[in-house]
Amino acid sequence: MEFAEHIKTANVEDVVLRQPLQPPSRGTLCITGHHLLFSDREESDSRQVLLLLRNIDAIEKRMSGSSGTITMKCKDLRVLQLDIPGMEQCLNIAHSIETLSCLDCVSAMYPFFYRPVELSLPEQWGLSSPEMHYSQMKELVIMRSSQPLLGANRKRCKEDELLLQAVIEGSDKGYIIDTRSMQQAQQARMTGGGFESKSFYDRWKRFHKQMERGKALQESLIKLVEACGDESNNMDRWLSKLENSKWLSHVQNALSTAGLLVECVERDGHSVLVHGSEGTDCSLLISTLAQLIMDPCCRTVEGFLGLLEREWIQAGHPFQQRCAHSAYSHARLQQESPVFLLLLDCVWQLWRQFPLALGFSEALLLRLATEVYASDYGTFLCNSDQERCALEVKERTHCLFQALLRPTERDYYSNPLYERTELAIWPSVHPQSLQLWKGYFLRWTQQVRHLEEAQEEIRNMVIEWGKLARS
Amino acid sequence: MEFAEHIKTANVEDVVLRQPLQPPSRGTLCITGHHLLFSDREESDSRQVLLLLRNIDAIEKRMSGSSGTITMKCKDLRVLQLDIPGMEQCLNIAHSIETLSCLDCVSAMYPFFYRPVELSLPEQWGLSSPEMHYSQMKELVIMRSSQPLLGANRKRCKEDELLLQAVIEGSDKGYIIDTRSMQQAQQARMTGGGFESKSFYDRWKRFHKQMERGKALQESLIKLVEACGDESNNMDRWLSKLENSKWLSHVQNALSTAGLLVECVERDGHSVLVHGSEGTDCSLLISTLAQLIMDPCCRTVEGFLGLLEREWIQAGHPFQQRCAHSAYSHARLQQESPVFLLLLDCVWQLWRQFPLALGFSEALLLRLATEVYASDYGTFLCNSDQERCALEVKERTHCLFQALLRPTERDYYSNPLYERTELAIWPSVHPQSLQLWKGYFLRWTQQVRHLEEAQEEIRNMVIEWGKLARS
Repeated sequence: MEFAEHIKTANVEDVVLRQPLQPPSRGTLCITGHHLLFSDREESDSRQVLLLLRNIDAIEKRMSGSSGTITMKCKDLRVLQLDIPGMEQCLNIAHSIETLSCLDCVSAMYPFFYRPVELSLPEQWGLSSPEMHYSQMKELVIMRSSQPLLGANRKRCKEDELLLQAVIEGSDKGYIIDTRSMQQAQQARMTGGGFESKSFYDRWKRFHKQMERGKALQESLIKLVEACGDESNNMDRWLSKLENSKWLSHVQNALSTAGLLVECVERDGHSVLVHGSEGTDCSLLISTLAQLIMDPCCRTVEGFLGLLEREWIQAGHPFQQRCAHSAYSHARLQQESPVFLLLLDCVWQLWRQFPLALGFSEALLLRLATEVYASDYGTFLCNSDQERCALEVKERTHCLFQALLRPTERDYYSNPLYERTELAIWPSVHPQSLQLWKGYFLRWTQQVRHLEEAQEEIRNMVIEWGKLARS
Repeated sequence: MEFAEHIKTANVEDVVLRQPLQPPSRGTLCITGHHLLFSDREESDSRQVLLLLRNIDAIEKRMSGSSGTITMKCKDLRVLQLDIPGMEQCLNIAHSIETLSCLDCVSAMYPFFYRPVELSLPEQWGLSSPEMHYSQMKELVIMRSSQPLLGANRKRCKEDELLLQAVIEGSDKGYIIDTRSMQQAQQARMTGGGFESKSFYDRWKRFHKQMERGKALQESLIKLVEACGDESNNMDRWLSKLENSKWLSHVQNALSTAGLLVECVERDGHSVLVHGSEGTDCSLLISTLAQLIMDPCCRTVEGFLGLLEREWIQAGHPFQQRCAHSAYSHARLQQESPVFLLLLDCVWQLWRQFPLALGFSEALLLRLATEVYASDYGTFLCNSDQERCALEVKERTHCLFQALLRPTERDYYSNPLYERTELAIWPSVHPQSLQLWKGYFLRWTQQVRHLEEAQEEIRNMVIEWGKLARS
């Protein structure tokens, strides 16, 4: 891959950068294969902005006279604007951004080039292997799968039936939570899928809890982000757009389905199998949330990242397809769907409802929400472990989760108020109890910055307090 | 006033009390002239609930067989339920509550009987006098008034014109903010009111910023509280009810009008006169908020209570009429209007947007929101200072604001993160930046309790930190 062919103008002087929460600044713009670099002119107080081109979701260009303006809408929801002198230069820059921000070739992406001096490539990639996890498993069993492939002629799979039978050995029954409606599950038969028939899985009780996925979820995100950017200053309009986006309904639905799962396991002591059709989206969402609710080991920084690695990376959530674009892109949506973002939002709701019970801070959730769309690390590349092996991701890129566990980062992402509790943290799923994740969706506004300041104040105070208490 | 005539049954055994967030308990119910007292049966861990009857906004009774249930909906939004054995006893209790909770006679109200051992009646009542305040006044002048009484034949008042002229002596002009629409102001002429004519107040520029008041505001509160109690678990329905209540629009409108006032004073350095028709509702709301935004002295616990005393108690907000009932009462609304509650909500929005800039905590706002509807203290009695004098309120009752400034209370109501800033705190009034005051409107739900726990944790940590730092 030769990046140079996409870069006709690599440097432009006298560019004005406008970004949220900061005064405009004038300086030099530079485009490389993976980055947009802006350097402030003021030498005394020089500031740089380094942006991964992959982070740019959509651009708009507007020419007037001999200069032009490029508006860049990022996947982390930031909106930046460049005023560029010279029409040709402006068009060249725009073309470079458009092309380089959505290259398809995974092995040409930045994680394969990211080589910070302080880090060497890890000998062991990631936090654990599936084998390690299986060996630790107890009688508590939550399973995920894809749908059974019955097809229209009701095929059976003896091995599946025996496996499920084996799981509930010694118990009276188990539950299956199907994240599709009964109707959707029935329709799936036409394309070779289906659901567990009562007669062959007689000790399993099946629930259908329909969850939105795919395109509907993506459209929900787009509507929500559009609403958040609405500057009409009209309260009714805002609340009506918020409702219309349905995003909070999806949050509610995910948390309440996870609650149902936990209820089956915790209160009734039964094994549960969760699946939709593929078992790589909603099933992961539900099983991850359920484990956070139930298991205090998943609520530390390490535990949470380990959970994500196991339930999302290893289990094969197709990150590359799902997170190719975010809320601004005009590209025709194919496989995009913000399931992982919905997970982070649900975890934030848990975090907000139980401010002492989770060992990590909101900042970790925000970092993950950014990294999943554009990253220096290889963790969220590809659609499955198989693809990752083929491209040698584990040998040739750095692992985000390992980086987040280095002492300084780990400290930064810890919740200073954390107090471990062994109890399940049952979230309230009343609509009145859930709220917009402002820290993410309105993160580039002044108001959220004030809240961050206060958080920072608390963090410092707690750290100082710890030092004093120890001395 | 003989309370005994309203109490046919003073004591009932074997009553079950159900209250939010706690398991039901069985014990003895006792009705006195001003209180409902419930004592738990368990002697080992005896608990009591003492409720001012004045706090009860509405009751519902339901008889079944030989027993009955009384549901009490309180002005602090709590809902309590009593299961009472014996139909006659139940009816007697209900009758007592109904009658004693809404006695009209001010001098029979509890503040005239409240005599805690640790307090003697104050020699000086309140925090300051209007005279003290005038003597401290600088060139910054915000004034409040009622509408000018022009009437249909356009009377003039030379003294008014000269007074306003004197205020802007040496400056080029002043602003008048009328909290009614132009049309409302014109209609007011028919009943003797009106607005300042351009020709006689030529150096004053008039704005009209219509604000909702009276019945419309009360209905908004009723709708909001109804929405908060909706248990349908439907996200769309909740958001749509929240929008439909318009409460957040009123919050937005109040904050943005206050912002306009501050802009005139701070940015342009001009004097401003605020009025609607009476000058005892919206004008107070706006001038209070404006002072909080502008003046750091108003942002301490003392400063804020002093501001409320000056702008609401001394200025004659008719508390008794406005706060006779809250959101549950079936009584026909007359003069009720939650203007003061709207103020507290707006202050909470400021507090949330500037978590470091205000010296008091959310707990103070919650305490005030409770006290204004039912109180041991005389502060919120009557409709004006004149009525208070006639009833000797200042000689015969305790002052809430003084009580809140005793060291232990003052500590409790302080914001541990407070850092004084001399800057104006300009609130964002984007609809996306404002949010439901959950601490008040959902205060009796589990979720809000968890948040309170975290607040408490922070408070303790900061106090411990302070001790360690000093030692």
